[in-house]
Amino acid sequence: MSQQAANGVPCRGKVLTLDNMNPNVRRVEYAVRGAIVQRAGQLEKELKEGVKKPFTEVIKANIGDAHAMGQKPISFLRQVLALCSYPELLEDNKFPEDAKQRARRILEACGGHSIGAYSASQGIECVRQDVARYIEKRDGGIPSNPDNIYLSTGASDAIVTMLKLLVCGEGRDRTGVMISIPQYPLYSAALADLGAVQISYYLDEDKCWSLDVAELKRAIDAARQHCNPRVLCIINPGNPTGQVQSRQCIEDVIQFAKEEHLFLMADEVYQDNVYAEGCKFHSFKKVLFEMGPAYSSTVEMASFHSTSKCYMGECGFRGGYMEVINMDPEVKAQLTKLVSVRLCPPVPGQALLDLVVNPPQPDEPSYNTFMKERTAVLADLAEKARLTEQIFNEVPGITCNPVQGAMYTFPRIALPQKAINKAKEEGQVPDMFYCMRLLEEEGICLVPGSGFGQREGTFHFRMTILPPTEKLKIVLQKISDFHVRFTQEFS
Amino acid sequence: MSQQAANGVPCRGKVLTLDNMNPNVRRVEYAVRGAIVQRAGQLEKELKEGVKKPFTEVIKANIGDAHAMGQKPISFLRQVLALCSYPELLEDNKFPEDAKQRARRILEACGGHSIGAYSASQGIECVRQDVARYIEKRDGGIPSNPDNIYLSTGASDAIVTMLKLLVCGEGRDRTGVMISIPQYPLYSAALADLGAVQISYYLDEDKCWSLDVAELKRAIDAARQHCNPRVLCIINPGNPTGQVQSRQCIEDVIQFAKEEHLFLMADEVYQDNVYAEGCKFHSFKKVLFEMGPAYSSTVEMASFHSTSKCYMGECGFRGGYMEVINMDPEVKAQLTKLVSVRLCPPVPGQALLDLVVNPPQPDEPSYNTFMKERTAVLADLAEKARLTEQIFNEVPGITCNPVQGAMYTFPRIALPQKAINKAKEEGQVPDMFYCMRLLEEEGICLVPGSGFGQREGTFHFRMTILPPTEKLKIVLQKISDFHVRFTQEFS
Repeated sequence: MSQQAANGVPCRGKVLTLDNMNPNVRRVEYAVRGAIVQRAGQLEKELKEGVKKPFTEVIKANIGDAHAMGQKPISFLRQVLALCSYPELLEDNKFPEDAKQRARRILEACGGHSIGAYSASQGIECVRQDVARYIEKRDGGIPSNPDNIYLSTGASDAIVTMLKLLVCGEGRDRTGVMISIPQYPLYSAALADLGAVQISYYLDEDKCWSLDVAELKRAIDAARQHCNPRVLCIINPGNPTGQVQSRQCIEDVIQFAKEEHLFLMADEVYQDNVYAEGCKFHSFKKVLFEMGPAYSSTVEMASFHSTSKCYMGECGFRGGYMEVINMDPEVKAQLTKLVSVRLCPPVPGQALLDLVVNPPQPDEPSYNTFMKERTAVLADLAEKARLTEQIFNEVPGITCNPVQGAMYTFPRIALPQKAINKAKEEGQVPDMFYCMRLLEEEGICLVPGSGFGQREGTFHFRMTILPPTEKLKIVLQKISDFHVRFTQEFS
Repeated sequence: MSQQAANGVPCRGKVLTLDNMNPNVRRVEYAVRGAIVQRAGQLEKELKEGVKKPFTEVIKANIGDAHAMGQKPISFLRQVLALCSYPELLEDNKFPEDAKQRARRILEACGGHSIGAYSASQGIECVRQDVARYIEKRDGGIPSNPDNIYLSTGASDAIVTMLKLLVCGEGRDRTGVMISIPQYPLYSAALADLGAVQISYYLDEDKCWSLDVAELKRAIDAARQHCNPRVLCIINPGNPTGQVQSRQCIEDVIQFAKEEHLFLMADEVYQDNVYAEGCKFHSFKKVLFEMGPAYSSTVEMASFHSTSKCYMGECGFRGGYMEVINMDPEVKAQLTKLVSVRLCPPVPGQALLDLVVNPPQPDEPSYNTFMKERTAVLADLAEKARLTEQIFNEVPGITCNPVQGAMYTFPRIALPQKAINKAKEEGQVPDMFYCMRLLEEEGICLVPGSGFGQREGTFHFRMTILPPTEKLKIVLQKISDFHVRFTQEFS
């Protein structure tokens, strides 16, 4: 650590190095913004500087970022946000009366009538009330208590906070958290950061990425040998896998959680993104309450939602909430204390969330435009989901489950043994090698399946279905052509 | 854990209880939003419901929340935010051209030209460039690299992230972090959460809360017995203590950090809040570079800033940044990875920060209004700082250092022994007992000094100087009267 320099002064290295930094942070991985995305950024810069590439544009299909892909913001949401930002506009005749009414109500709930004031740490009270009413309506009248609603900085924030509360113990007593494989890598990253034990359960690719309770049982029994399983995380509709869980499956999962004494975390941020015929979103809370008091009064649960997905796609505002159910009141007090340290979630995101859960009603002036915009986005997504499945499944060596919901496809790709060998030579996992080649040759940025987890020996990538339809067709065609070329090159 | 219920089914307790939750979270304390603020909220509700109280309004002087205290937002900032939220307004003649130009530039830097898209995790590139130029100008030309700027969700987010990187080791090797007493309790809360060791150094109340390097030395030497001191945190201007560090003192601190091989964290969120004659803000970075290459090329440092304070007081937007200096490139890559897990800071907050660091220039149409508004806020704060010191020091038993900067006063209060005994009987720390009585009798919400730390046997409270001048005078008078009454009651 301490060396003697030429001038006789001890020459010490850095205070903070890779070797002595937080080892948990070093273990964190987050592929959605990993090496491939950094390379995509470099390529964009090179294109701008006039460097010649085999493509004229980098298409980032790595992340569910609707606006970046050209989706227009919903007018009503942005009108209210502009009114909240600059209340002088409340005098402007250009804005519809319902937008003004929403803005006035939000401003009245803010300290000093300004969205620049801190809110309560749990979130603005009237927004939490609106969220509770929205959940009640969604769930056919099952009551929701605004005291159980915590607004958050996107869903990620609430998920990490909830996991943080749940982690304790050392060695074999360390908290184990069950997550699906494939998973959204926020989960594995948060578990690494918290030093919790990841318990992987596999979704069944052959059955449209469905969840099988026997697999949950296998995973938890194996894990009990080396940790204390306390939490079960579910993503429905699925990310990256796009499946929508059946009501029966949800009931089985709740039963399992009760039997195994697990805290349930239901990531339901894609609840409005359901496209496939015969598929329907069932909230974990609704099913829980329909199973009767033996379940609804005992099973502890948190459900997460966000303003970043669905029809609005407002990722940049970092809005979201969680609802906690059957949480021990003393723990809830601790949760409230914990969130207070960060003061409050961004207030513009809270305002946005309020509009999402309390949109224009049929008798209000903005209703028709709002519904037209909303329906167009969702119909478009449904069409793109269908198109993606269809085109990919025409390519030999690509197998693609239906995109029932969410915003992604996670097709399986057959990679020739020579390509796998070549990847190993270059020190890359094979699907990263594949995706990097695709990026360099076609300018399309996907995330390798290894970033989400997959069964040993299988390979996938995640792609969002968000590009505009005409561009999506080109992207799908380019990937298909690349796949054929790649397969030939290494056969 | 498992009991037999009447029906024979094992009746297990909650999965998550106070006993088996994360013990680090249990240890977290955050007085700024603690029990007294919750009681203030209850009182507000009771007043609304018509319950009679000895006051008609609760005044929350517990937190530095300018807008909640009636400060008006700066017009230019909010015009640009409205334009960014609803770009149709760019066609509106009511908005000045420089506001439109700023909005266009921000929107062009956003994915899909929307503030609803995710940004790069480190923050929008052009905003980071503007921040770097702002720092260079502030520091008389010392270069700042946009790659060293990380935008954040308020300063709190960046401070916690930086601490998280720095914490490692077990037992006597556990990272120790030096923080001032009194401190802003984000620090103690974050250290509890991370399981790091808090090393307290005391500010000298008799010398206007100045920092003495001999005290730093005492604290670190004692701490080396039981932990590995690696970090030194400084808040300048001081929170809750309102002092502004002299240039010499900053130089001494940097020298100390170098000698003791410490990572420096400089919390400079009040850098524009300096009021006292003869006081001036010196950034740690500027002093570091003026000390020559032996320092400027070795001492590792992070400096934090925020949109929540200064003249704008936009707390609700959760904007902020940190600049890292001399950070090991491998560690920086880890930092970039870590922040990517949360995707990005709120984009409206990033936009706001851009305006703060790139405000209207003398040749632009908004300049005069902007300067008028900015100057009025800062002049007002200076007057309130003076007034606070003057009125409190007229009260027997209250001793108040000058509020040289920041937004708070932290006066010392003499409490009669009988009051201390009475507090103990009721299981409260004496200054909490005092503040609770003040809240119940006068409706004024302060934070007890014990929430920030203070020398054994001394008592204080923190009060913001933010209420409008006329209201502040009433608040100061009410506290003074209460103090006299309280002292008489317990004498």
